Amino acid sequence: MPGQKRRAGGTLAPNTAVKANHKHLPAKASVQGGHPVSIEGLMGLSGYLLRQAQLFVFHDFNQRLAPLDLRPAQYSVLSITRENPGLSQMALSHVLHIGRSGIVPLLDVLEARRLLRRGPAADRRSHALYLTTQGSRLLAQADVLVQQNQDRMIDKIGRRNHEQLLKILEVFGRPE
Amino acid sequence: MPGQKRRAGGTLAPNTAVKANHKHLPAKASVQGGHPVSIEGLMGLSGYLLRQAQLFVFHDFNQRLAPLDLRPAQYSVLSITRENPGLSQMALSHVLHIGRSGIVPLLDVLEARRLLRRGPAADRRSHALYLTTQGSRLLAQADVLVQQNQDRMIDKIGRRNHEQLLKILEVFGRPE
Repeated sequence: MPGQKRRAGGTLAPNTAVKANHKHLPAKASVQGGHPVSIEGLMGLSGYLLRQAQLFVFHDFNQRLAPLDLRPAQYSVLSITRENPGLSQMALSHVLHIGRSGIVPLLDVLEARRLLRRGPAADRRSHALYLTTQGSRLLAQADVLVQQNQDRMIDKIGRRNHEQLLKILEVFGRPE
Repeated sequence: MPGQKRRAGGTLAPNTAVKANHKHLPAKASVQGGHPVSIEGLMGLSGYLLRQAQLFVFHDFNQRLAPLDLRPAQYSVLSITRENPGLSQMALSHVLHIGRSGIVPLLDVLEARRLLRRGPAADRRSHALYLTTQGSRLLAQADVLVQQNQDRMIDKIGRRNHEQLLKILEVFGRPE
């Protein structure tokens, strides 16, 4: 059980049987020179927890998708382009909250790898984006690994909590 | 209401009265050349949503704490040091999942700003960390702004969801 494993990682964890009760214990989990490190102040901050959770998922993502050489942002770009063929570069940048200076090099790399191509758009200031056959094929392989990444999250927090999490965070996924 | 505001941002949002029902609608929220961008594929991925939520909180954090010139990681370091005076550099690095190459420059900056000092540690390979008076004072100011940052999150998702979120993500905050 992953939760158990983490918990047992502290060499001084006195008693794993306290787990069911752990929310009433102070957040002391790491050990330094025999003294557990307290992070009570941060444990009540959703920003801190969101960051730690995101690092956990991305770390797992990067390991799993290393064989395909695909990072989270690249996967997002390919996934959105599959769902919206002919999407403009500007719309993509807007949806992902990535500015022009971020989106251009991201697309350059995917285009150089022949996973995505830029076509002419109705709006001449932008480009229309399409997956190549190679891009579609790689994305289908990636989908399987991304599902495994998600399953790792579900293992970690439980299926019900995971569904709850998706609902709570839904508002952040919807672009303006 | 922030949710409403975001939703109305799509110029083609046909009818805000569907809001109560929105979970049954496809995730089409942004607009490109008159066509909403669909991100259905990503909306079911907790990794994507965690990232978007984290970007939202950090963006707000950085704006609010700009007058104190304090970034999230710096705040975390100061907060943990306050809670664990004499903490070793290694233990801090472990708790925050930041490697040596990341923690050293982070501490250098805080020490140069005289917010934190490194003292000798029992273990000669490491340092014992302490807040300075100036560091304690700045951190107390920061606490107020960080609470406002958290309140922004609570406004965004609702108090009950926020409490739920803290519980679900608790496991990621506890270091091994």
